[in-house]
Amino acid sequence: MLKVLTAGESHGRFLVGILEGMPAGIEISEKYVREFLKRRRGGYGRGRRMKFEEDNFQIIGGVIGGRTTGAPFAVMVENSGARDLEKEPPQRVPRPGHADFPGSLKYGFTDNFVPVIERSSARETAVRTAVLSITHKFLHDIGINVIGFTRAIGSIEVRDIPRSFDEILEKREKSMFYFPDPDVDGEAKKLVDQAIEAGETLGGVFEVRVYGVPPGLGSYVDPFRRLDGRIAGIVMSLNAVKAVEIGDGIEISGKSGSEAVDEFEIEGGVKRRTNRSGGIEGGMTNGEVVVVRGYMKPISTMRRKKMSFDLKTLAMKPAPYIRSDTVVVPAASVIAEVLVSYVIADAVLEKFGGDTLGDVVKAIGFYRDRIKKYFPSSHL
Amino acid sequence: MLKVLTAGESHGRFLVGILEGMPAGIEISEKYVREFLKRRRGGYGRGRRMKFEEDNFQIIGGVIGGRTTGAPFAVMVENSGARDLEKEPPQRVPRPGHADFPGSLKYGFTDNFVPVIERSSARETAVRTAVLSITHKFLHDIGINVIGFTRAIGSIEVRDIPRSFDEILEKREKSMFYFPDPDVDGEAKKLVDQAIEAGETLGGVFEVRVYGVPPGLGSYVDPFRRLDGRIAGIVMSLNAVKAVEIGDGIEISGKSGSEAVDEFEIEGGVKRRTNRSGGIEGGMTNGEVVVVRGYMKPISTMRRKKMSFDLKTLAMKPAPYIRSDTVVVPAASVIAEVLVSYVIADAVLEKFGGDTLGDVVKAIGFYRDRIKKYFPSSHL
Amino acid sequence: MLKVLTAGESHGRFLVGILEGMPAGIEISEKYVREFLKRRRGGYGRGRRMKFEEDNFQIIGGVIGGRTTGAPFAVMVENSGARDLEKEPPQRVPRPGHADFPGSLKYGFTDNFVPVIERSSARETAVRTAVLSITHKFLHDIGINVIGFTRAIGSIEVRDIPRSFDEILEKREKSMFYFPDPDVDGEAKKLVDQAIEAGETLGGVFEVRVYGVPPGLGSYVDPFRRLDGRIAGIVMSLNAVKAVEIGDGIEISGKSGSEAVDEFEIEGGVKRRTNRSGGIEGGMTNGEVVVVRGYMKPISTMRRKKMSFDLKTLAMKPAPYIRSDTVVVPAASVIAEVLVSYVIADAVLEKFGGDTLGDVVKAIGFYRDRIKKYFPSSHL
Amino acid sequence: MLKVLTAGESHGRFLVGILEGMPAGIEISEKYVREFLKRRRGGYGRGRRMKFEEDNFQIIGGVIGGRTTGAPFAVMVENSGARDLEKEPPQRVPRPGHADFPGSLKYGFTDNFVPVIERSSARETAVRTAVLSITHKFLHDIGINVIGFTRAIGSIEVRDIPRSFDEILEKREKSMFYFPDPDVDGEAKKLVDQAIEAGETLGGVFEVRVYGVPPGLGSYVDPFRRLDGRIAGIVMSLNAVKAVEIGDGIEISGKSGSEAVDEFEIEGGVKRRTNRSGGIEGGMTNGEVVVVRGYMKPISTMRRKKMSFDLKTLAMKPAPYIRSDTVVVPAASVIAEVLVSYVIADAVLEKFGGDTLGDVVKAIGFYRDRIKKYFPSSHL
Repeated sequence: MLKVLTAGESHGRFLVGILEGMPAGIEISEKYVREFLKRRRGGYGRGRRMKFEEDNFQIIGGVIGGRTTGAPFAVMVENSGARDLEKEPPQRVPRPGHADFPGSLKYGFTDNFVPVIERSSARETAVRTAVLSITHKFLHDIGINVIGFTRAIGSIEVRDIPRSFDEILEKREKSMFYFPDPDVDGEAKKLVDQAIEAGETLGGVFEVRVYGVPPGLGSYVDPFRRLDGRIAGIVMSLNAVKAVEIGDGIEISGKSGSEAVDEFEIEGGVKRRTNRSGGIEGGMTNGEVVVVRGYMKPISTMRRKKMSFDLKTLAMKPAPYIRSDTVVVPAASVIAEVLVSYVIADAVLEKFGGDTLGDVVKAIGFYRDRIKKYFPSSHL
Repeated sequence: MLKVLTAGESHGRFLVGILEGMPAGIEISEKYVREFLKRRRGGYGRGRRMKFEEDNFQIIGGVIGGRTTGAPFAVMVENSGARDLEKEPPQRVPRPGHADFPGSLKYGFTDNFVPVIERSSARETAVRTAVLSITHKFLHDIGINVIGFTRAIGSIEVRDIPRSFDEILEKREKSMFYFPDPDVDGEAKKLVDQAIEAGETLGGVFEVRVYGVPPGLGSYVDPFRRLDGRIAGIVMSLNAVKAVEIGDGIEISGKSGSEAVDEFEIEGGVKRRTNRSGGIEGGMTNGEVVVVRGYMKPISTMRRKKMSFDLKTLAMKPAPYIRSDTVVVPAASVIAEVLVSYVIADAVLEKFGGDTLGDVVKAIGFYRDRIKKYFPSSHL
Repeated sequence: MLKVLTAGESHGRFLVGILEGMPAGIEISEKYVREFLKRRRGGYGRGRRMKFEEDNFQIIGGVIGGRTTGAPFAVMVENSGARDLEKEPPQRVPRPGHADFPGSLKYGFTDNFVPVIERSSARETAVRTAVLSITHKFLHDIGINVIGFTRAIGSIEVRDIPRSFDEILEKREKSMFYFPDPDVDGEAKKLVDQAIEAGETLGGVFEVRVYGVPPGLGSYVDPFRRLDGRIAGIVMSLNAVKAVEIGDGIEISGKSGSEAVDEFEIEGGVKRRTNRSGGIEGGMTNGEVVVVRGYMKPISTMRRKKMSFDLKTLAMKPAPYIRSDTVVVPAASVIAEVLVSYVIADAVLEKFGGDTLGDVVKAIGFYRDRIKKYFPSSHL
Repeated sequence: MLKVLTAGESHGRFLVGILEGMPAGIEISEKYVREFLKRRRGGYGRGRRMKFEEDNFQIIGGVIGGRTTGAPFAVMVENSGARDLEKEPPQRVPRPGHADFPGSLKYGFTDNFVPVIERSSARETAVRTAVLSITHKFLHDIGINVIGFTRAIGSIEVRDIPRSFDEILEKREKSMFYFPDPDVDGEAKKLVDQAIEAGETLGGVFEVRVYGVPPGLGSYVDPFRRLDGRIAGIVMSLNAVKAVEIGDGIEISGKSGSEAVDEFEIEGGVKRRTNRSGGIEGGMTNGEVVVVRGYMKPISTMRRKKMSFDLKTLAMKPAPYIRSDTVVVPAASVIAEVLVSYVIADAVLEKFGGDTLGDVVKAIGFYRDRIKKYFPSSHL
């Protein structure tokens, strides 16, 4: 149902994003979107970067009087640090781990791959986050709450994750790494500080949870409609993500069936004793909390020299050091929160239709009614 | 570019699949496709099942005189064990881990979810494998070879994977689990036999590798064109897969940047010292072998009782035991081989166009020429 | 929302079609579908052809117990007149007006374009009609009725079209040309008989009307969501159609604004004095009857010789005479009825969502309520 | 292959458009795009409007150093006449012939449908023209030239259309109506002046021709790949277009087969005696000039009063008069030129792939070679 495109170069004057297909009537403010941009820029371990995104963000389409109109939702981020891209110093030494080398071959930029760097930069995720953040708001308005947090920084993993949305949110706000357990901050900070010292970088793991999602989003009838595939596709598309997991997928691959199945119980409605499946069975939400994890490689650009070569001369050269983040897992947890929101919102609109927020609320209400025997306490 | 649909119920008379968008001129035989079906039915740890797929498979569209015509490629699997689905005994006790419960709610089958079981069954993957196997052949014809194998059965993991396609193929054919190292068979068989004894099931890990793939498939310019996302999406859509990994994604998420980056070297062309990225950088192939892993949960249906309930009465009941496989990772490795082939073929056609195999060969040849400075020994 | 593929060759053993995305719970029988196939084979002016379609049609997916299940709806037409396509006499003289020449160039069949003829034949529309006829049934179940009829055969045009669905239906059934006015049959028959005599063919015009459609299907917010574009796209895709018109589009292009606008009036709800717009304003249904016309060229294959050439020798030769219909506008009116149903059903599902027929009925009911001030007498 | 989205409101601060999928290496300048915008604003019979589009247009993505980079191509039109949309006077009297009424019902704006007017306005076509004009340039670079012109203004039709692209271009530039025959200007001007006087509006017909297009774009193998359907879909989506015709489709629907078929002749390659089919056979280009016509209704807003009603009170009221164009067929011919270019470019990329302009040129060259027996004099 939803279609999204973004455009603009990392150091161009504007980044723009357009999202087509959102219902009319959703309250949305620039302030709301800015909170995501601000959170995305944060997290300990980021380099010094200009804070231009916040100040120069604006909604430029699809909203009148603070509410969506059904027209394409569009955002613009103006770049106060824009440069004349034609005059950028030419780049000919590709950084391993980046788009530089294959991108130069693909688009014919072996003389100078500035165009590759400009578009493949994670800077694009600023406008993507902005334009998709409205899906997060929409879900919130229909009782579905999506939250992303950091699960591991390098080898330091969070040990204890609260069960409820509110508790996770509360604790995440206290952590400089967006952990749902600020007590891990100290260890992680030490690790990051060591990495900074050593000119190194770190990867890690983020997690996104979706609370309050009705059962039956996605479908088993056709593989392309399976929600797990759609989530995995979009999360893996995020820069530096190299693995995606639903529920405890990796761990249970080594276990026996008895240890992996989420048995039913009836207790004022249908409950599960565990949620190993991460809220998805048969490619559909099953009424439990949806749990998605993304595994990120360490950032490939680091002060410590890595070998590369000149695309023109084929002479070996160290890869250039352009960017200064040490770890971006916290930022990625924010973007992933929004990406997962997008997939869930898409599946909601597919299932419930709805040109207006009111229509969607009504259709979900009918459905909740239809299945209330199994989920009697559901809201809406 | 490619579009695919399948239809049919698990115990219906026919399963059909249609693939639209393949070039004309690809040699394909029913024998070729049957090899995939046969391999998919195999692997130690499967239950006794009728061998109907093989005998009754036929190509019913898009091939004349043993070559594709550009018209939709279509296959049919006739089911000698077809039943009158209207007269099936009603099902009201959902198996946890399956589509049964959310599917019944979604489509309104809480009185009897036979329709859910019939379509969500992994039986559909037979026709999917058949109809997509032509993409594997197409890739082979243009010098790209895709191979899937088993990496782990439960906790038993293969220790040593050969580097070349031919060696993997040779060893895989000797293993009853499709391991690229038949020496592990003994241990794995013991584990599976114990599981059978205990009424248990097992999960595991499969891997798919793509050899000979040109750099620059996929793109960084738009997230939806990133090849890693497209691969993750389709592999995660496979029944029982709960995590997808590109290269060593999970391991390197806990490492430092220096340990994760695949440095360049120049040695008769551009080489890498490692392939931690699994052949994909910036959402594109980079000229190295593409490496994809899928993590499978143990099959959710097992002889050992798991608690469920009656959808009508809400009374607790053990989940029914319908199917008798103990482990299906080997079968999944075959399907995944074909699914990954589909994504790569799609990206090839996107990049090179081509209404005929000859056109594609020409376009790839020209591209290999354009970048031969970096990959001088490439074939085609 | 909906996805459809068909496959099979004109003289192959099977034609199959798959439609993905229909809600569960729609009553459908093979008899219902066969009526469309039968009607499609009819109409005066058709050549002698085998009646194989009717007897060998079956539904092979997506229906259990006479109702859709939400799984892909699939149909198969078995071809009792199937031939070994490899042994067909080679074709090298392209018929102008057909796919023969450009298709041979495109797919590399200049030595023998049997594969082009086999797929481009209008025979494919049999399975397309069958697989999409369920959308007609679905619309009927939610109070939307779609009817196609012949408007002109060659230069003979129907003069008087009844206003109501029932009257058109009643009259159409009495006409050998599917005119909504059987009194024109005589003239048209004379024209067709003359054409047969002269070895000629005829074109004509069909019309499709949609009654009971709620306002607001389609959207102005993005051109690709406009309903008029989607209808025009699919109707123009029908073999031999060379123009598509919504309402009185051609006539009013030469008139003044006053003569073209459909003024409002309030008379127990919102009414229009005219329906020049054919029920679509701003790319959306407006509550009036949707009116679509297709203009068909005469069939390009005729007994009367037309010049062509041998693709191998470039020697001039008359085009071969393969098929014997004189006029197919009545048949096309049936197919178009189904194609328009498909687009409307797609737009309904987009607007109202719905995994089950009951869900759709509920959502439409709520919408009809929401706008009942303007359409107080609307059903559902 | 190509994806396009636009956003922004008619009187909002910005209109933006993004086109994803264009190859790298196409030379494009803001001046080139501005020519289209300027031409779109022209044509006799337009009302007084601010000329803001020209001055404030800029390319904001996908171009570095005057050439495309493969990244999404994006444009922005800044609106010097922007207004605070929240403070616009409420609108409650829908203009018949516009999106006002169905749009208000759909999106729930019956209290005030300013949001409908703001997005459904033809102003959106400014940014659409800008963002798609690059496809026109791309086609030009590969030897395909697309030209749009006016064929009729109301009842005044052009009598004589030159055969060649250059002649049409030359004559069109001399006509105030973009006729390919400026001699008709006088008559048309008289008609328009009368209409202005009478507070009336006029419709008409535009035509788009595509020269130099290789045979075999589009395909017969699947209806959705047919080029005629794709062209019809996008042209019908243009505001006020109510009919689309390929070649002489409407006229030949009333003729006999002999009068409609374009016979072959061999004369230094394959030629046709006529081009009744408008360059498309079997849903594919056939090597002849592609001819597309769009029939436009008169503009629905006119000074002369048309009856409408108040959405709140249901009291009859005359429709408001907001806009002052008398005829927009010339402008539409410009937009349609660009829309048809988009479809042709999409089909070119589908057939030839190509990440860079050079790759496309090479692939087309191979193909022209492959079929040069039939088209020996083709360029490239």
